[in-house]
This record gives sequence, C-alpha cells and structure tokens, in this order.
Amino acid sequence: MNGADALLATLSANGVTICFANPGTSEMHFVAGLDQSDVRAVLCLFEGVATGAADGYARVTGQPAATLLHLGPGLGNGWANLHNARRAHSPIVNIVGDHATYHAALDAPLQSDIGAVASALNGWFRRVERSVDVAADAAAAIAGAIGPPGRVATLVLAADASWDEVSAPPAWPRARASAPAAPDAETITRVAGALGPDAALLVGGRLDADTLALAARVCRARGARLMMETFPALVERGAGVVEAERVIYLSEFAIHQFASVRTLVLVGASEPVGFFAYPHVPSRLLNEECEVLQLVAPGVAATSALARLADELDAPDIEVSVGDVPARPRGELSARTFADAVAATMPEGLIVADESNTSGVHLFEATRFAPRHRWMTLTGGAIGYGLPVAVGAAVASGSRVLALESDGSLMYTPQALWTMARENLDVTVVALANGRYAILDLERQRVGAVLAGAPSEQLFDLDRPRLDLAALARAQGVPAVTVTSAEALCDALEDSYARRGPSFIEVRLAPAF
Amino acid sequence: MNGADALLATLSANGVTICFANPGTSEMHFVAGLDQSDVRAVLCLFEGVATGAADGYARVTGQPAATLLHLGPGLGNGWANLHNARRAHSPIVNIVGDHATYHAALDAPLQSDIGAVASALNGWFRRVERSVDVAADAAAAIAGAIGPPGRVATLVLAADASWDEVSAPPAWPRARASAPAAPDAETITRVAGALGPDAALLVGGRLDADTLALAARVCRARGARLMMETFPALVERGAGVVEAERVIYLSEFAIHQFASVRTLVLVGASEPVGFFAYPHVPSRLLNEECEVLQLVAPGVAATSALARLADELDAPDIEVSVGDVPARPRGELSARTFADAVAATMPEGLIVADESNTSGVHLFEATRFAPRHRWMTLTGGAIGYGLPVAVGAAVASGSRVLALESDGSLMYTPQALWTMARENLDVTVVALANGRYAILDLERQRVGAVLAGAPSEQLFDLDRPRLDLAALARAQGVPAVTVTSAEALCDALEDSYARRGPSFIEVRLAPAF
Repeated sequence: MNGADALLATLSANGVTICFANPGTSEMHFVAGLDQSDVRAVLCLFEGVATGAADGYARVTGQPAATLLHLGPGLGNGWANLHNARRAHSPIVNIVGDHATYHAALDAPLQSDIGAVASALNGWFRRVERSVDVAADAAAAIAGAIGPPGRVATLVLAADASWDEVSAPPAWPRARASAPAAPDAETITRVAGALGPDAALLVGGRLDADTLALAARVCRARGARLMMETFPALVERGAGVVEAERVIYLSEFAIHQFASVRTLVLVGASEPVGFFAYPHVPSRLLNEECEVLQLVAPGVAATSALARLADELDAPDIEVSVGDVPARPRGELSARTFADAVAATMPEGLIVADESNTSGVHLFEATRFAPRHRWMTLTGGAIGYGLPVAVGAAVASGSRVLALESDGSLMYTPQALWTMARENLDVTVVALANGRYAILDLERQRVGAVLAGAPSEQLFDLDRPRLDLAALARAQGVPAVTVTSAEALCDALEDSYARRGPSFIEVRLAPAF
Repeated sequence: MNGADALLATLSANGVTICFANPGTSEMHFVAGLDQSDVRAVLCLFEGVATGAADGYARVTGQPAATLLHLGPGLGNGWANLHNARRAHSPIVNIVGDHATYHAALDAPLQSDIGAVASALNGWFRRVERSVDVAADAAAAIAGAIGPPGRVATLVLAADASWDEVSAPPAWPRARASAPAAPDAETITRVAGALGPDAALLVGGRLDADTLALAARVCRARGARLMMETFPALVERGAGVVEAERVIYLSEFAIHQFASVRTLVLVGASEPVGFFAYPHVPSRLLNEECEVLQLVAPGVAATSALARLADELDAPDIEVSVGDVPARPRGELSARTFADAVAATMPEGLIVADESNTSGVHLFEATRFAPRHRWMTLTGGAIGYGLPVAVGAAVASGSRVLALESDGSLMYTPQALWTMARENLDVTVVALANGRYAILDLERQRVGAVLAGAPSEQLFDLDRPRLDLAALARAQGVPAVTVTSAEALCDALEDSYARRGPSFIEVRLAPAF
C-alpha cells in the first residue's frame, strides 16, 4: 500500500467516508485508492462546490467530510466557501495534493505557498512529506477539524508521500475530540446570578430544538430574553420548536434590539457587531453599559451547559407558542407571496439552504409555524454558498433540501447544479431572479454612496442580457420550470417534493426594496 | 472628493482606465466615483472572471488593468487566475475593498487575513487606511504592477479610507517603471561567447515577431537552437513570423529535446523543469553538464537585449520559412480535423486563448503558417483561465479573440460568457466536449496510478449527465451552435468571424488519447 491508501484507510477508520473531489495529477494515487476504500468520492466541477458541500455536510451531521483539491489554485477556488465554513465552525478535512517534495524547490508553474492561503482560514494546517507520516497526520487533521470548536483542517499531501510505499499498522490511528471546554461551576453560577429581566441569552452555531428549549427555559426562569445570532450555521425551526429573537441584519435596528440589554450571555455565539461598518452608525451593537458573559464558546455544543444552567435555576418547563401557517398564496409573485408559498408547501423534515438575500425578507416570519425543519444561513458573507451547501446537506441527510437562491448569488457557483443531477440529489432549487444585485441597492444607500449616472448604475444590473436560469439548470441536467404566479410556485414546489432527484424553479420577481 | 475618487483619479492619470469589477458593500464609494471618472468598469459575475480578464488585458497590451474585489472571499475567488497572471508576469492592480479600520478588530463575519491570501501571489501588497494616503499608495501599486518584471499588485482599501474626504493635489502622483534590469556589457559578451552549435536560447513571456526574429538571428549567427518555453504568456505566430521550438509538455520527451544542449541561455524564461513530478522521471529537464546563463529575467522585455546581442554577433538577417495552411478539413471531428479547421479559417490578427488541453495537441503544427496571429497559453496551470482571459483580450484589443476551451476547463469559469454577451465582445468560443477529464487519463498513467474500478473511473467522467454547453452559453446571452462535422465547424468559425459580438460553437469529439 502507498501513502494515499493509508490516508484513505485513516479517513475511513475515523468515519470520514465522504469526499467532495475535484482532483488533478497530484491526486491520482488518492483517486486510484478509492477502488479499495469505502470512502465515497462525489465529483464537483469547481472547488468552491466541493468545499461548500463539505460545509453543508458538517452543518447537518456535525461530522467532517473530506475535500480533495489540486494544489494552491484548488484551495484558492475553494477558499470563499471555506471562509463560510470557518464562520460556521464546520469541521472539514481538506486534502490538498501538492508537488513531490523534491519538485517543490524548482518553482514549477503550479508551485505556490499553499500554507499562506490556508493560514487565512484560522484553522488547522499541516504539510505531510513522508508516506510513513500520512496516517498519523491524517488522524491529527481529523482531530483538528472536529475540535471542538469545529474548524477547517488542511492537510497538504506531497505527491511522493502519496505514492511512496508504507506498511499498514496493526490499527489505523484514531482522532480524538479535544475535551470540550465545558463551563466550570463558577461560570454557571455567575451566569445564573446575572440573568434577569434586563439580560439576554444570545445563542448561535448549530441549534437543535432541544438546545433551544433549554435556552428558553433558562430565560423564562429569570425573565431574560432569548436571542439568536443573525447567521447561525443551522437552526431547527417550525411547529413545536422554540423561536429565538433573531438579531436584525441592519445595525441601525439591531442597536435598538439591544438597547435595554444590560447583560448579554453568549452561548455559542460571538459578541454581535455590525456586518459592515457604516458612516455614522456604531459598529458595536451593544450599549456601553452592557456586560458580556460567555457560557459556551462559538463552535462548541451548548446543550449540556444549558442543561446544567437550567438545573441550577430549577427552570420550569415551557409551552411552545402555536400559530398558523400562511394560506397558499395567489396572484403576483413578490417577496411576500414567495415566502408564503415556501411556508404553505413545506414538508416536515425539510432542510433549507437560504441565500435568498433581499428577496427572502419575509421567510422567517412566514415559516415560523410550518412543519419542523432546519435552516442554514450565510455565516461568513461569502456569496455562492447556497447551492454547494445544499449538495452537502443532501448527501449527508437523505432529507429533501430546499436551496433558496438569488440570481446574483447563484452565478458564483452554478456548477453545483451538475453534481445535484449526477448524484440525483433530493434538492429543490428556487432561483429568485430580480435581475439586480438588489442587496447593493440597499447597501450603497446605507454607506452613503450617491450614484449619479449610468457608469455606476450598470454595476447593479443583471438583466442585460437576461440570465435564463432555468436553461442554465437544464444545461447541467437538472429539470427546470419557470413560474410566473404564486399558485404556480406552490404547485412546482409540491411537485418537486413529491419525486426524487433535483428540481429547479425559476421565479421572476421585482426587487423587494 | 473622497478617497475612492482619489483612487480613480490616480488610476486614470496613470492610464489604468479599465476595471474588471465584482463589487460589494465596501466598494460602493468606488462604484459611485465611476460616474465622474473615465475609468470604465466591466461587470463580472464571478471574481475569477475579473482577475482572468485583467490578465488577458495585460498580456495583449503589456499594461495593467484594475480589478475591483470584495474583501477576502473576493480575492480568494480571484486567486487562481491571479496565480496564472503571476506566472505570465502580467501587471495587474487589484483593488480589494475591506472593512473600515475601526471595524477590522471586531472580527465581523467577512473579516479575514487578506494579506495572507495575497502573499501567496508573490507580488506587491499594501493596505491603505487613510484617505490622504490613497493616491500615493495607488501610484505605488501601479508601479509595483508594471515593474518590470510585471507583477500582481494588491491594494487593500479600508472602507473609511474610501469614504473619508480628501483634497485633490495639484497633480495626481505618477507611477514610474523601475529601470529594467538590462544586461550589462559583460553579460552580453559572456552570452555571445557561450553561443555555439551545442547551445540554445530559451525565450519566454510576451514574444512578438520582432523579438523572435532577433532571437533567431542571434541563434543563426552561432548555429545555436532557438527554443521557447512550453507556456508563454503570449507569442506572435503564423506567416512571416519565426517559430521557436517549443519545449514539450511531457517531461519524458522534453529531456530528449535538451539532451544535446550544453549551454542554455534564458531570455525571459525560467529554467525548464517538469510541470509535475513523476516517479522515475527527473524533474529537471536539462542534462547535468548543461550550463545555464540568463540574458533577461522572466517578466522583463527582451527586445533591446537581443538587439544588442545581435549587434555584438554581427548577426545576419534571416529568412522566415514559408509553408502551407492545411486545407479545409472534411468529415469526422477529431483533434486532427479540429486543428485543421482552426488553421484553415483563421483571419489575420486573431488572438487565441488556448485552453484546449488534450484536444489541442495538433494546433501549433496546424497553425504554423496561418495568417499572423497571437497565441496565449495556460501559464500557471490553474484551469479556468481561457474564457476570462479572452474577455480581457477582447476589451483590450478590438481584435477578434478565439477561445479554445474544453468541457472540463470551461466549467471553472463559465460566468465569463455573460460578460462577453453584455459587452458584445468579439470572442468566438470553441468548446471541445469529449465528456471527460481526458488530461487525467494521461496523467494518471504517467504517475503510475492504476485504476481498477468504478469508484475511481467516475472521477474522470463528465458525461453523466451530459453537459449541454451550447445551452449554457445561450442561457447567458451568447448565441450558440453545436457542430458535428469538420465542414460545419469551418462554416461556424467563418460565420462568427464575419459578424460582431460573441459566438459559441460546441464541438463534440472523442478523446485524443
């Protein structure tokens, strides 16, 4: 066996059995090794699809998938979605093939400083140069990925470490999770003492119904508010699930949300700050008197800490509010009827990858009491995450995934559609086409940039020429329809949920703002 | 005026009047400033298109274009084509918008270490934090880009440096080219003395007909061989132009090419090494006795140095060989008839962006005596360069550009098609669809990886589902045809050359190997 085989065996022994791959020459031994491995490779036509898919896999399962990337350019192409994964604290194991050790000094055309590109992901990094080190380094990479906190791990595999022979050890090394940084008794006591009517719990990260219920009990026991970060990695929602008050994206409004909060307890969330800076708007969202405590660090599961806190407070059970799902909308397609259509047709167990941007403003409200579902958001702000993350979520779960995309964001990683078709993934894509970078219409007003002519205006316009998104999907093997009414959107959604494999629904609608 | 206006004024004063842009919130003041500027922004739907276009612009003109990118993810998405530009020594000025200075410490979702990502481009980098510094830093960035050698310069512009007010200076600062590292008299004499029948000149970079003619005269004067690197940034070719012997991509053969070379003079080229390492094949292509001299460093224009050398050698004029253009091919489409069709229909002045990979093996030979044209190659090995570079070449030149793409490589940056349609660029795209990553079929044999089953085999297969490339082009506004015979390909090429704007020709053909 060679180093690549040892790598595959170590991945497999540690349960890392999915690899989103876009290989090249330096990865050929890894590819050949797949024939004797239970690691399943999913081909992606662009590296940003592979890394986004690994992020989606991690968000749904909490476990790492691998990616297979080709030298510096492969990691570069995958970097933006790894940035989102970093912010989601998703465990990912990147395998980046590189030149043979003795070739690296020759400055061949593909030579580059892969470590520098990886370093900006603030994760785990190592370069393995000898086949005898591959298994141990792979186990270390997996451990680096799972943390906690979850991180992006990057293992650069020199080609000779991949093709040189190595003996199989008696057992493949196991990656051990570091002991989670559980809060000490003092922190529990301190947080319990600090909670009161002018306090709030801010939860974030991967939030399931049980965790949210515990957080709600804690808050109810002391009359504190339960809040959620603007962009959680994944949150369970819908009928029977506690809903936390989401921090509003617009700093101008978020500052008001926090105005009366004198104590903020962070539970897997960072201190809330503005997404961008804006002239004359503070970047910090908390008032100056607000004390900030941390119960659980970002990327660390919060359930057990919240359970201990609930015990400490002898927190009573709570009843989850009930309400109605919007009726099936009729007539014109707008941000409003779009949101209602998603809510009215939603099947239980759906996973939503939301990159609807400005067109999605009404979604959270509309789906509040829909059947139980999970929602993923754009954690790191790097556009082009939705379709790739949907690929990974579908591979991970066997559940139907609904990817809500905008025309602008879809065009960053459209190649994900091909992998959906190839793997016959149960993904429904709704592509919201308003023909603009509409988010920038909003943002340029917020930063006070005044447009006064065609040269600037044309940078917001995606409709010259018009993108035929349905045709773009069909060209990659995904059946597609275009809908022009709310009724037709509801029908198309239900049709897609009723059968296996991917569907694409193009929705033409006016900008929401 | 604000810092963004000062930046635009400095770009303009230095002749940098094209900006390939994919802006976000932090770039809105730059966008607004376009209305009072003669800098023309060309919208790209993905950053890899913007950076590749800037590379194409630089290869054709020798002058820098700007790009406008959005924080770390924007630079990440553009990184792979910047890597190719780095290897082409293309001058490029990246403007990367970033958070306001006071916002950077808050670790907002889009915060990342942009400098680390940029550092792997081995170019010029600076972060500008005050509006009063913008003009001087922009001039320094332009100077950093033009060198020589040409480089990728990255100027990170903090949002407050962009929006804060600044006064216009009496004159905008000018970027000065560093004095080119002209060879001293001793080097000229040494090279002249070293040239002989067992010597070769290896030229690279941007090679026009005059430079090649000078190099050929020098070689003829001493009976030396004239060779060219495998992947020059741009080389003038065709009737009346000297052709240098191209170093073969396959190391196994390139080693034979150099077997009798005892002295190699580098003229804007690096020492030739294998593109990848292969077991049992040397990575260095030169024999151990070969002495290497450098006349001109990579990325520095060689014309004047070669003229001095020709004078020193009193080198006689030469006659350029003449030959025939292949006849219009008929019948089945293959790598052979494809190459003949390109040659037989080629108009004078064409610029070719070649990413045809395995399907392009016969192109150089077939076009040897075609009308005079310029040829660009994949300098850095980062796939997905062809369509973006074609965009930039067309914006730069007003000449017809022929982008030769493969199905695999096209799918890395398909968004370039939309910019071709939007700007009505005179680009003809020929998309060679063999339904495979055929280059990997070749490469995996060369590295000795043995495939033995479906799990590995499926990573080479692009035909499940079949990509409908013509539909992909039409979906983005580019008229497209699919051809199934050599005659039809010739007709489609001639049709596209006869009218303005982009055309897309899908060619289905069998793998060449």
